Amino acid sequence: MTAGLVPRLLLTPGEPAGIGPDLAVSVAQQEWPARLVAIADPALIAARAEQTGQTLRIHVVDTPDDAAPHRPGTLCVWPLSLNAPVRAGQLDPANATYVLDTLRQAGRACLDGRGDAIVTAPVHKGIINDAGIRFTGHTEFLAELCGSPLPVMMLIAPLADGHELRVALATTHLPLREVPDAITRQRLSAVARILDRDLKRKFGIRAPRVLVSGLNPHAGESGHLGREEIDTIVPALEQLRLEGLDLQGPFPADTLFTPHMLHDADAVLAMYHDQGLTVLKYAGFGRAVNLSLGLPILRTSVDHGTALDLAGSGHADSGSFEAAIALAIRLSRRQGGRRD
Amino acid sequence: MTAGLVPRLLLTPGEPAGIGPDLAVSVAQQEWPARLVAIADPALIAARAEQTGQTLRIHVVDTPDDAAPHRPGTLCVWPLSLNAPVRAGQLDPANATYVLDTLRQAGRACLDGRGDAIVTAPVHKGIINDAGIRFTGHTEFLAELCGSPLPVMMLIAPLADGHELRVALATTHLPLREVPDAITRQRLSAVARILDRDLKRKFGIRAPRVLVSGLNPHAGESGHLGREEIDTIVPALEQLRLEGLDLQGPFPADTLFTPHMLHDADAVLAMYHDQGLTVLKYAGFGRAVNLSLGLPILRTSVDHGTALDLAGSGHADSGSFEAAIALAIRLSRRQGGRRD
Repeated sequence: MTAGLVPRLLLTPGEPAGIGPDLAVSVAQQEWPARLVAIADPALIAARAEQTGQTLRIHVVDTPDDAAPHRPGTLCVWPLSLNAPVRAGQLDPANATYVLDTLRQAGRACLDGRGDAIVTAPVHKGIINDAGIRFTGHTEFLAELCGSPLPVMMLIAPLADGHELRVALATTHLPLREVPDAITRQRLSAVARILDRDLKRKFGIRAPRVLVSGLNPHAGESGHLGREEIDTIVPALEQLRLEGLDLQGPFPADTLFTPHMLHDADAVLAMYHDQGLTVLKYAGFGRAVNLSLGLPILRTSVDHGTALDLAGSGHADSGSFEAAIALAIRLSRRQGGRRD
Repeated sequence: MTAGLVPRLLLTPGEPAGIGPDLAVSVAQQEWPARLVAIADPALIAARAEQTGQTLRIHVVDTPDDAAPHRPGTLCVWPLSLNAPVRAGQLDPANATYVLDTLRQAGRACLDGRGDAIVTAPVHKGIINDAGIRFTGHTEFLAELCGSPLPVMMLIAPLADGHELRVALATTHLPLREVPDAITRQRLSAVARILDRDLKRKFGIRAPRVLVSGLNPHAGESGHLGREEIDTIVPALEQLRLEGLDLQGPFPADTLFTPHMLHDADAVLAMYHDQGLTVLKYAGFGRAVNLSLGLPILRTSVDHGTALDLAGSGHADSGSFEAAIALAIRLSRRQGGRRD
């Protein structure tokens, strides 16, 4: 890595009763070539450190610009106050606005240039909804904050051979029944353009090559198993190729994820959640990271939930959060982090 | 393995212009504790051996009972005549009835007790349909021949840790759009019962434990992402548990295939093709095998297509066909193969 670039990563521990605070405490024990700034109630972080038997020195900062490069055993905290006391494992709708405030503060800071990336731990959608707040997910919340019309979800997993598998989704959190009609030429085109652009900008890939799956089994088998490939996907890809995008497919999903197919591809564009993520999470083995494309800010995230039963136990696996931080550092430095 | 049990495996090379004949020639070069009987035109097998530069001694037999235990470099062939000459890689609808006759002869022999298992190489559905014959696949064809109302497709792949992953499907070759309505309580119950029974009978597992996926992403997330789990899958599983089946779930598919979840499970029941098979084929790495459940006969198969471009080249990968033979031997011996 280039010396002198020490990006400012804003960590949002998410649901305070979940494992997010534990993860923030865990990663703070490690070396990171970054300024880590947790946006949280300092008392929550201190309490969770104590509960999980870890020593942590907390530095409260007024702005991420005040954060020093990370030193193991310390953590900079940009404070926000909880609305109600937290007990690990016990959800409380009273803290829903606190959770959203941490995200809002992180998002605005990145938009203002005071942070280089956001790394999010899991939130609990249900308890936010129970508090009477419409909320469908981190990605959508940040997209709205940024004024971005179409966030695209990509998951990234390290493979045993040292490469990484990148899977972007044309649709995300939809009932399966609604997926076929959501795959329109317009949506596919918009998603593919964002994917192509962000592979160039965020990853520095000059001419990204993307493998596209079909919607139906066997990619429709020439229309015998569904017509969406013929009517929608193939025409969309043909148009996009005319624009210069290197899109291969549509391929049957069940034979797309093989070393032979993947070896010269930069990403896979899958049509829906379980088609793309089942194999990615299997391959990623607890080290998968969620990256939001189509936003003006960098945001990475864990690929798992709040694991309420593990909060405060000291047994939460921080692998995905560590991978999310590592990716945020890598991509921040590519975009040019803050110089010392 | 117990001495004296040498099962009779009926190999159907499938589409004669595809790689099936190549695979039969390849596996014949290896050691197998079985009687291998290819149902084919002997001239086709001889020609493909010559074309791929392999020496093969063909023994024509009148019935599988005449087949001796396998010796490398030889192959017993139970003859059926091609309708038209075959050129590797060139489909010809004239041979469609030949292909189906090989399957019919294999199926009847197993029903009559003259064969212990069928191992099928790929057929080409399109060319059979082009010949004016309604044909949706091997499994359905053999199910009709056996009078079995509901064949269930299971794929099996060896894992790096020495275990095997078994995935059965509640639906198979359907357009994605038709999947949600095809997942009825009745269908789920019938499939789960067949899976349970065949894990007991075919694999000798006393109390099979099965992990069941949801239909929707995140298994519907308490109804936020689809109601089929609540309305159909959960009630079906509750009823089946009362019957004594050990069914866990429904689980989100994207986190079901992890070592932690799989380690004490005997199989996964996935709701549809790409949800279950994408990860299985990735994990199986060219050694996945298709096993038909719900039939009175044993049938294993490769998990790939006819690969017309590789027929006759000598470059066809016989890994899946070898794995299909190995599984057929293992399951035949469990059921009690023919004694010498």
